[in-house]
Amino acid sequence: MAVLQNSKLKERLLENYSSELDHSGVSGERVAWRLSRLSEIGATADGGSCRIGFSAEERQAKELVKSWMLEAGLEVREDAAGNIIAVFAGSHPNEPVVLSGSHLDSVPNGGHFDGPLGVLCALEVAEAWKESGYQPHRTYEIIIFSDEEGARFNGGLTGSQAFTGELELEQQFRLKDGEGKPFEQVIREYGLVAGRLLEAKRDVNEIAAFIEVHIEQGKVLENKDVPVGVVTGIAGPKWYKFSFKGSADHAGNTPMTDRKDALVASSWFVYELSGLPKEVSPTAVATVGKMEVFPNGINVIPGQADVYVDMRDISEASVTALSEKIIHKAQEAAQLHGVAVEYEKTLDVAPVPIQTEMQHLLLRAVEKVNLTPVLLPSGAGHDTMVLARYIPAAMLFVRSQGGISHHPDEWTTLDDCIQAVHVLKKAIESLVSR
Amino acid sequence: MAVLQNSKLKERLLENYSSELDHSGVSGERVAWRLSRLSEIGATADGGSCRIGFSAEERQAKELVKSWMLEAGLEVREDAAGNIIAVFAGSHPNEPVVLSGSHLDSVPNGGHFDGPLGVLCALEVAEAWKESGYQPHRTYEIIIFSDEEGARFNGGLTGSQAFTGELELEQQFRLKDGEGKPFEQVIREYGLVAGRLLEAKRDVNEIAAFIEVHIEQGKVLENKDVPVGVVTGIAGPKWYKFSFKGSADHAGNTPMTDRKDALVASSWFVYELSGLPKEVSPTAVATVGKMEVFPNGINVIPGQADVYVDMRDISEASVTALSEKIIHKAQEAAQLHGVAVEYEKTLDVAPVPIQTEMQHLLLRAVEKVNLTPVLLPSGAGHDTMVLARYIPAAMLFVRSQGGISHHPDEWTTLDDCIQAVHVLKKAIESLVSR
Repeated sequence: MAVLQNSKLKERLLENYSSELDHSGVSGERVAWRLSRLSEIGATADGGSCRIGFSAEERQAKELVKSWMLEAGLEVREDAAGNIIAVFAGSHPNEPVVLSGSHLDSVPNGGHFDGPLGVLCALEVAEAWKESGYQPHRTYEIIIFSDEEGARFNGGLTGSQAFTGELELEQQFRLKDGEGKPFEQVIREYGLVAGRLLEAKRDVNEIAAFIEVHIEQGKVLENKDVPVGVVTGIAGPKWYKFSFKGSADHAGNTPMTDRKDALVASSWFVYELSGLPKEVSPTAVATVGKMEVFPNGINVIPGQADVYVDMRDISEASVTALSEKIIHKAQEAAQLHGVAVEYEKTLDVAPVPIQTEMQHLLLRAVEKVNLTPVLLPSGAGHDTMVLARYIPAAMLFVRSQGGISHHPDEWTTLDDCIQAVHVLKKAIESLVSR
Repeated sequence: MAVLQNSKLKERLLENYSSELDHSGVSGERVAWRLSRLSEIGATADGGSCRIGFSAEERQAKELVKSWMLEAGLEVREDAAGNIIAVFAGSHPNEPVVLSGSHLDSVPNGGHFDGPLGVLCALEVAEAWKESGYQPHRTYEIIIFSDEEGARFNGGLTGSQAFTGELELEQQFRLKDGEGKPFEQVIREYGLVAGRLLEAKRDVNEIAAFIEVHIEQGKVLENKDVPVGVVTGIAGPKWYKFSFKGSADHAGNTPMTDRKDALVASSWFVYELSGLPKEVSPTAVATVGKMEVFPNGINVIPGQADVYVDMRDISEASVTALSEKIIHKAQEAAQLHGVAVEYEKTLDVAPVPIQTEMQHLLLRAVEKVNLTPVLLPSGAGHDTMVLARYIPAAMLFVRSQGGISHHPDEWTTLDDCIQAVHVLKKAIESLVSR
């Protein structure tokens, strides 16, 4: 290993580290040092990370991890979409391989765990094998997907979509970044050819399974006081916009009984909506994150209120049932308050369930390292969402302090990171050993 | 009378006019023609009026009405605040005078009735007396107050506040208009001296009573199907800002049971608030006209929601009781939903009750012209609000179509305007005859 750099992130990670977790070839210090080195690339003034997909910073982070892969004696290649793949050859290299990894790009002022942790956990499994002399039956591959967050083109999952072949190139070619630079030019400057991105497509029969480790970005594991949890499915968001329309009369001269107040109607709706998810499933959620009032003057009764609803669940049937209840509730709100309501669906992403066998594989690995098995849904999208549509895939969530993510304050203790490595290692070993 | 100009407003007003209302010296055509002439000053592309206080257009409107006052044989003067006063001398000129009038300035794209109607009704009483040879015992004065709307300096009531002596000159001198022009310069360009505005102060013992005719700017009279109503009091608005603070977590990764959703809490508050005014009085109103959600992203649980409340009633005790209930309800909303709430009062205008004797005087006049007596509060401020703090004052509201005001579509039928003239004339006559 190279000489350790003095880094605040590494020191903070190691401060309360339980060194008894260093066993079976796994090194907490190595993971801490690597997280720390990555955090220096695209460091922001707030102490966060800025490594936008297809930027020089994402490239630099990939090159750094690639150097560690090479040091570990792995064969490394880059595909046509910029995905980096390191190969730990198995004794039976013609059998379908086992894949693990995540991404290194970030949102504009993100944290140091979302993405890098999944890549480094996957790499640490190989490091541990190298130290312990473990020889897998199947080949094990570690992957760094390009541009998962999509901060540059408001898209994301570009690397995994090219890898599975579902990237829609025509649509990509129409994209421009915030400065008006076309997608094609950005890709060219990154050292790739936009028109050849789909050459990254992998024959799915070559892959036996994929596992991604990722921070939870929520507080379920923190509330349950466990370091890791097994993802049951990735909830696809459906977005609806509801416009309530009443009459924008004078707040002083209109008696309470003569009003058509669009905000009173929509407030009833927002409140009632918060009680609907539990009627369809324990994992369903519905949120009004955005609301706009017109004309939005203190002394004018709102003539219009636009309510934006995000609803999610891990099964399509459940989220469809929820959307029906929400639409019905909006219509009831309008009727009760003498206003009109219109609505439109603005986003519809299908949920991706995780195969029960893959959940069980991870649960068994959790038990093998003496942790409590916990199941939870993922509310956010990940590369796993793309891969699970084609191959057996699983996802392991790691506890996030305060559920904070996409923010410099994002934090996961080194103990939790290393517990995740041990779970991933057990799961991968059970996959590569036959 | 001068040769009538061809004007669309006049024609529209006269279209459905009931000419039997032309009696006792009152002329519907004259009022229609004058409303029409005034509408041409500061005409906007939308068919509205733009005669900002202390602008050339307000000055031009005053000069036009002044010319009619002089034609009617009245003595006309302008005070130090630019208020125009026309005098119809009584047989006992040393007794306190009776005053009526309103304003000629408008909001930037206002209508043709808010202000001008009150001035022209007051002048029409004098015109009618002139034609019928009526000689008042007391002197009758017609007043045009300067800058009632306050569109230029976000203030208003400048003329009436100078007239009663309550204008705070020091504060006025700090004002700048939207283009950064200081108050002093605007007043100078208008032909007045800012430092001398308070010389307009009138000895209140010289005035027996004031009556203002004004469009309702609400739909109470329209809903009751009556042309005029007697104002019981002018509701002083109190404004509060409530900030609900929760936790801005991920909409997908935060179970419904783990949320601190500031918008759900404030929605419950907004809805519950709409039921509170009736608990304190039938005239009380409370409105959430403005609401701001943070960060206002579709997939982020709102961490903060700012709710702006406008509450009004015609008695201070009632509006205070209402504010206490509203504050209590906000605290209950916060407690029930696990969020915090802070609040501040941002405006506090004391309500001005109208003396019962003055209400009765107008009610008797309404009955004398065979109209149904209707009482209603004023939710908006008017020059009467300022004068009623010093002298007996009354206010007559005239039906507004659809309650629309401060908008080019503002409309009151000529029948309703002339009914208002007859009621005002009866009321003024009962005041000046003794």
